Amino acid sequence: MSKIKLIAEPGKQEIVITRVFDAPRNLVFETYINPDVIPKWWGPSKYVTTVDKMEVRTGGIWRYVQRAKEEDEFAFHGVYHAIVAPERLVFTFEFEGMPGHVLLETVTFEDNNGKTLMTDRMVFQTVEDRDGMLGSGMEAGLTEALDRFEQQLQTLV
Amino acid sequence: MSKIKLIAEPGKQEIVITRVFDAPRNLVFETYINPDVIPKWWGPSKYVTTVDKMEVRTGGIWRYVQRAKEEDEFAFHGVYHAIVAPERLVFTFEFEGMPGHVLLETVTFEDNNGKTLMTDRMVFQTVEDRDGMLGSGMEAGLTEALDRFEQQLQTLV
Repeated sequence: MSKIKLIAEPGKQEIVITRVFDAPRNLVFETYINPDVIPKWWGPSKYVTTVDKMEVRTGGIWRYVQRAKEEDEFAFHGVYHAIVAPERLVFTFEFEGMPGHVLLETVTFEDNNGKTLMTDRMVFQTVEDRDGMLGSGMEAGLTEALDRFEQQLQTLV
Repeated sequence: MSKIKLIAEPGKQEIVITRVFDAPRNLVFETYINPDVIPKWWGPSKYVTTVDKMEVRTGGIWRYVQRAKEEDEFAFHGVYHAIVAPERLVFTFEFEGMPGHVLLETVTFEDNNGKTLMTDRMVFQTVEDRDGMLGSGMEAGLTEALDRFEQQLQTLV
């Protein structure tokens, strides 16, 4: 399986992640926004992820909750700015454990000879917020999540 | 009247604008989100601005339309991520003339001995988008808009 490529230039306030999935673009897009599939891939497998809200439309709210055994809950939420099937999603993202720190995430899907190139561009309010996200172990978490996403895709192709 | 201060460091993808208004924070915040007052200050006076939508809540959509004599309409829209009265607004912003280019705007209001310091931080998906906004004459437009906003405040204090 293809691994993710993560670019975070020093002093900038963005993180750009790319990954190729071995599935056609329509399927990748539809799976990415499918609330029934989110618990199967979003976040590391050691957490149980539930979808509290997922209103996939402009102005819709999404909220996911993660729970680990004998630990507290972690929750994340945001609002969808744009849904352009099967090309692009634009939405905000906030970890409720750090309220007030918001990022803008743009996920694009491009056909690549029957595979799909996903580009996830996150822009942060400050460089410090960006560096905080990098320091939180997000690369390992995202790598695992996107491996799990690829596995889900392979059950659907 | 205080002028705006605009910071846009080369190579970064943000613009930070500050301005002090001679009015208490609660009034500044309430006026900023008042749809009846938006047409009196948002944008340059040579345009007629109308509020198409302004749902000031998480997930709410805003959309403003500007029309100049014998010219086309310009429209702008976004979604509110957070409304924390009287401290902070977080929302997305898209000029419909350049669809797909979205920025995240965070406007904070701080008390400053009875005056109010407004900080408006815009982060863009790319440096090119940021530079495009700077090149569009936004500083002059924003200076005029915030002068008009101060005038509206002075009718209300």
